[in-house]
Amino acid sequence: MTTRRPGRRPGSADTRGEILTAARRVFAEKGFDKATVRGIAREAKVDPALVHHYFDTKEGMFAAAMKLPITPHEIIPMLMEGPREEIGERLVRTILRVTAAPETREPMLALLRSAMTNDQALVMFREFITNALLYQVADRLGVPHLRVEAAFAQMFGMIMGRYVIKLEPLASADPEELVELLGPTIQRYFTG
Amino acid sequence: MTTRRPGRRPGSADTRGEILTAARRVFAEKGFDKATVRGIAREAKVDPALVHHYFDTKEGMFAAAMKLPITPHEIIPMLMEGPREEIGERLVRTILRVTAAPETREPMLALLRSAMTNDQALVMFREFITNALLYQVADRLGVPHLRVEAAFAQMFGMIMGRYVIKLEPLASADPEELVELLGPTIQRYFTG
Repeated sequence: MTTRRPGRRPGSADTRGEILTAARRVFAEKGFDKATVRGIAREAKVDPALVHHYFDTKEGMFAAAMKLPITPHEIIPMLMEGPREEIGERLVRTILRVTAAPETREPMLALLRSAMTNDQALVMFREFITNALLYQVADRLGVPHLRVEAAFAQMFGMIMGRYVIKLEPLASADPEELVELLGPTIQRYFTG
Repeated sequence: MTTRRPGRRPGSADTRGEILTAARRVFAEKGFDKATVRGIAREAKVDPALVHHYFDTKEGMFAAAMKLPITPHEIIPMLMEGPREEIGERLVRTILRVTAAPETREPMLALLRSAMTNDQALVMFREFITNALLYQVADRLGVPHLRVEAAFAQMFGMIMGRYVIKLEPLASADPEELVELLGPTIQRYFTG
């Protein structure tokens, strides 16, 4: 009853999946900072070179393991490219776009939920968010860490209010209305 | 070995506690909107007049039952009093003040955590937050609901980032630095 598509190499697919399973285990146990590509390769019983073949970086592996809709390496160029005076608008629009579909949003919310209720998951989340995302953005753009965290707080609260708490009218607001409302807030934190 | 302070009436203290226990049960079961003072009195097996004697309003009873550090009936006058152009600053400073001590902060965070992980608790939290707080503030100040929810999102994200996720430098930032950073955001949502 099983079907196999021609040309598919089940070995490769399994290896990638096994690396991600090992990555989830290692990230949960060691946190984001102390986890290494080498340690994850050892846990998955594969060569580190193979891990690098599938995932460019530890950040990319984390994003894949947690099924995040966007990686820090995609967010940072998106923020840097285009006019600096539209950075707030660009950020709000991107976050709303990648969280619009339940399939891409749910894994992110699952990560948040587990961070809210489990200390180990919280450490992992905090280390990833700060060292792989917020501090990178801040340092690349030359913005103080506190200001980037204020922007994070606004976007985090918006995601929670819209998709978790489901406050109306926020939950059904048109994305462009939210870009108009929140864009200037983010802009001020980044350039004000 | 028990000590009794002179003049204390243990009967009264128990009655108040029993009302609050009944209130927690009724709010959890029916949500905030459908719970009534009469229903809580019935659950606590006391006269509704006695419930009114201890708690002015359903909002006040909810705040006491959930051990919230501040009630909607305190927040609204605080926002209305004083210059309209300092409303953002006033709100940020008040929220930081009432969340500064772990004793007053923890019950609020417990309510949030249970809302994140339990659907019934979420409905109760959403109904309270919107109908007893955000819509009241919006309507009293003549501000669109969506703008007050954007302000809520900023403050909610700040509280989560500072006290739950514990992002640095946000977690140890001086309150006045946060008033300066977030005050203009809230001000713009309320009057911009």
